[in-house]
Amino acid sequence: MNKEVGITASKNDDFSEWYTQVVIKSELADYAKTTSGVIVLRPDGYSIWESIRESLDKKLKETGHRNGFLPVLIPESFLSKEKKHFEGFNPEVYWVTQSGDKPIGDRLALRPTSETLVCMLYSKWIEGWRDLPLKINFWNSALRAEITDTRPFLRTSEFLWQEGHTVHATQDEAENEVMEILNIYKKTIEEELAIPVITGKKSEKDKFVGAVYTTALESLMPDGKALQMGTSHFLGQNFSKPFEIKYNDENNVETYAWQTSWGVSWRLIGGMIMTHSDDKGLVLPPKLAPIQVVIIPIYSKEDREKIILEANKIKDSLSSNNVRVELDDRDNHTPGFKFNDWELKGIPIRIEIGPKDIAKNQVVMARRYNQTKDDISLDKVSETINLELENIQQQMFVNAKKILDERVVRVSEYQQFKEELKNGKMIDCSWCGNQTCEDKIKEETGADLRVVPFDGTQKSETCIYCKNSGTTNALFAKGY
Amino acid sequence: MNKEVGITASKNDDFSEWYTQVVIKSELADYAKTTSGVIVLRPDGYSIWESIRESLDKKLKETGHRNGFLPVLIPESFLSKEKKHFEGFNPEVYWVTQSGDKPIGDRLALRPTSETLVCMLYSKWIEGWRDLPLKINFWNSALRAEITDTRPFLRTSEFLWQEGHTVHATQDEAENEVMEILNIYKKTIEEELAIPVITGKKSEKDKFVGAVYTTALESLMPDGKALQMGTSHFLGQNFSKPFEIKYNDENNVETYAWQTSWGVSWRLIGGMIMTHSDDKGLVLPPKLAPIQVVIIPIYSKEDREKIILEANKIKDSLSSNNVRVELDDRDNHTPGFKFNDWELKGIPIRIEIGPKDIAKNQVVMARRYNQTKDDISLDKVSETINLELENIQQQMFVNAKKILDERVVRVSEYQQFKEELKNGKMIDCSWCGNQTCEDKIKEETGADLRVVPFDGTQKSETCIYCKNSGTTNALFAKGY
Repeated sequence: MNKEVGITASKNDDFSEWYTQVVIKSELADYAKTTSGVIVLRPDGYSIWESIRESLDKKLKETGHRNGFLPVLIPESFLSKEKKHFEGFNPEVYWVTQSGDKPIGDRLALRPTSETLVCMLYSKWIEGWRDLPLKINFWNSALRAEITDTRPFLRTSEFLWQEGHTVHATQDEAENEVMEILNIYKKTIEEELAIPVITGKKSEKDKFVGAVYTTALESLMPDGKALQMGTSHFLGQNFSKPFEIKYNDENNVETYAWQTSWGVSWRLIGGMIMTHSDDKGLVLPPKLAPIQVVIIPIYSKEDREKIILEANKIKDSLSSNNVRVELDDRDNHTPGFKFNDWELKGIPIRIEIGPKDIAKNQVVMARRYNQTKDDISLDKVSETINLELENIQQQMFVNAKKILDERVVRVSEYQQFKEELKNGKMIDCSWCGNQTCEDKIKEETGADLRVVPFDGTQKSETCIYCKNSGTTNALFAKGY
Repeated sequence: MNKEVGITASKNDDFSEWYTQVVIKSELADYAKTTSGVIVLRPDGYSIWESIRESLDKKLKETGHRNGFLPVLIPESFLSKEKKHFEGFNPEVYWVTQSGDKPIGDRLALRPTSETLVCMLYSKWIEGWRDLPLKINFWNSALRAEITDTRPFLRTSEFLWQEGHTVHATQDEAENEVMEILNIYKKTIEEELAIPVITGKKSEKDKFVGAVYTTALESLMPDGKALQMGTSHFLGQNFSKPFEIKYNDENNVETYAWQTSWGVSWRLIGGMIMTHSDDKGLVLPPKLAPIQVVIIPIYSKEDREKIILEANKIKDSLSSNNVRVELDDRDNHTPGFKFNDWELKGIPIRIEIGPKDIAKNQVVMARRYNQTKDDISLDKVSETINLELENIQQQMFVNAKKILDERVVRVSEYQQFKEELKNGKMIDCSWCGNQTCEDKIKEETGADLRVVPFDGTQKSETCIYCKNSGTTNALFAKGY
């Protein structure tokens, strides 16, 4: 049977094939085998999304955001109201033109993003300064027809995400919101997914269509490509003016409001898979693992009952300590088969328990992420496992951070830029700020300007391309 | 300003207008003012949906169901694989025919329901008996183009719902699932929404297209129309055969599996509004109220500080007891204005606190649902409020149940049937089981057969229409 075959591609040799096999064979997702680039989430995959959602939703509610629901259909007349925005999305919009057997007059777009619909609503809902700030988030999906290079979680025609849309009385307040959200994203991605990220501003060329500026979180994947993990946009008054989002201030003067929008998608799951997994399959950070611990009993016919009894005791003890635990007592499979099966699924900790272990009042604890094993005392299983889960979560982040730090390389010569890029590095260099240089670099090397980092050390060098001075730090890499 | 005007229609005189005003003015939802019959949920409305989802999701997970994600686009070739099913949905399907500027070959339907896509997937995922039962639920939205008689929550072209799809090894197990879900729905609707329901089987005519039979939950709204609150379908092997959902049993014999599907939608929120609300606006059961208690301080300039201080103490005390509480300290509105405002929004309990109350070491507690007031001791506010919230929740159900019971009328003569129907009653009568009588009754009175109730007392009478014997109990009413 297919699903009993493990990963047959190597992460080092064929990253792309390896990635797809991990996603499909670990049963996180499957192709809908219908429209190109459309996936379904199986329960393990959706469970990871639920955990991310729960963690992020909590942080958003604590900072005064509330959730709402928006319809997926947006009439063309709305979408086209902010021109640049519309032109940016138009090529990838799905259009509904019929209902039943009848043609529809005004074409309906499947939401590529909801700024236009939201702005129409906000212009109705906001009257005075007391209605501000208005901070609403929407957990839904967006649709953008992707034809080429589709990849589960990374590039699909429909994707789960959240889109937040806020309105503020002042520019300052809106800009603070942009940064608050960026920090909430960073915390979630680093603490839950154990992926280190670099934050910064996108260049003019790559900002969100319609925004004043876009901030983003970037990480570098093991194949040397950067992955954008989320964005938080300052919209200024670019939408409030065409959509007439105005409020009366305390002196009853009518003023255009200031806006932000921001989102992260299930692309985060793709980043997590690429960052942590290996040739045996998925490696999950404990906080997001649907099952955190699997117990594999090792027994012969004679001692089956006794071993299963002990295994169940461990299961109950972990369960009552809020560990998500499963006992694999299938009789038709060998322990070896089970080891492979659960390693493929990325379960953080495996406990092995056999007659010899019981005799020594211990069990074997095996860590998925670094393939190490330890004997642990039966009397302290629950305590040990809880600490270990926390430790694994932290260590996975520390390891990934170390790798990222090593792979961001400071260069001052263009020749070196090109060499290091070929080595799969992210390039930290000086840039004059002109799109001409950005375009030339892209054309000649394939690298995009990922972000102008917020915490980049300001080194006063000349632009890596044109050698002019008056530069800023910028990070370049090939991207997804 | 519009929102400062309360409900201007009366529930008794113009139910339909009253309903729409309650939904819009209490800010649960708004029209997207775009496509006909499309609404958005504002934060208070979405919060109610979140609470329903949370409660139901917990019960589903406890009974071994897990969640997944399905794409909204379904190719026509899939949808048409089960013929009756396709014909049933076809008139209301939205079709995507273009992406960007290019036509799409195979038209893509916006999911009216996902049986066909799910079956295609399940046929891949299921191999042996160990893969069963497979019980996956999907929280998403469905789209059915509604042109006429659209109404927020009750009839909209896109609606939030959950759709569960399960596969079982035996018919018995599948039929037990159908009933388990029906009971979970009943518990949720009665205990959370405080709406009493009657469960039973739909007639052949009204069953889900493609099902063997459909079970449903029905309630009677104050305007005398029945509202279907949810359905749980036994699909038999009607889908497993065309979609080849087969498994190898323990003897390695290939067998077609047995299936169920079931769903409830945000229509539940519509039922809750109609059942409990009144001419002052929304009335929310405490369990689903985004805010359960609002504190209104009553003060003059001199004692403002002191009163607000006391009000905040109450707020903190309730908050720390997990009561969702808000203090309305807006200075620009009178207490009277605030009373109306929060009554419109259906907050279960209002606490009034003024200098006279403090002097007597008490506050006034006003209940939204029955408009009664009591003085309660300041020393026991938290304790009293917690008990009162439970009491209100129960009493709202008891009241609604009493009304429902009174309005289900047993009749044995067709003349009486017609008269009671005009009085807004649900008719409990005997029926021969033939669709001819069901159709004639519909034609002559407008009443549908809502369900053959599961707990109907079997009265051996002749059919209300044809007077033949060999009857079953059936409930008739006009419906939404």
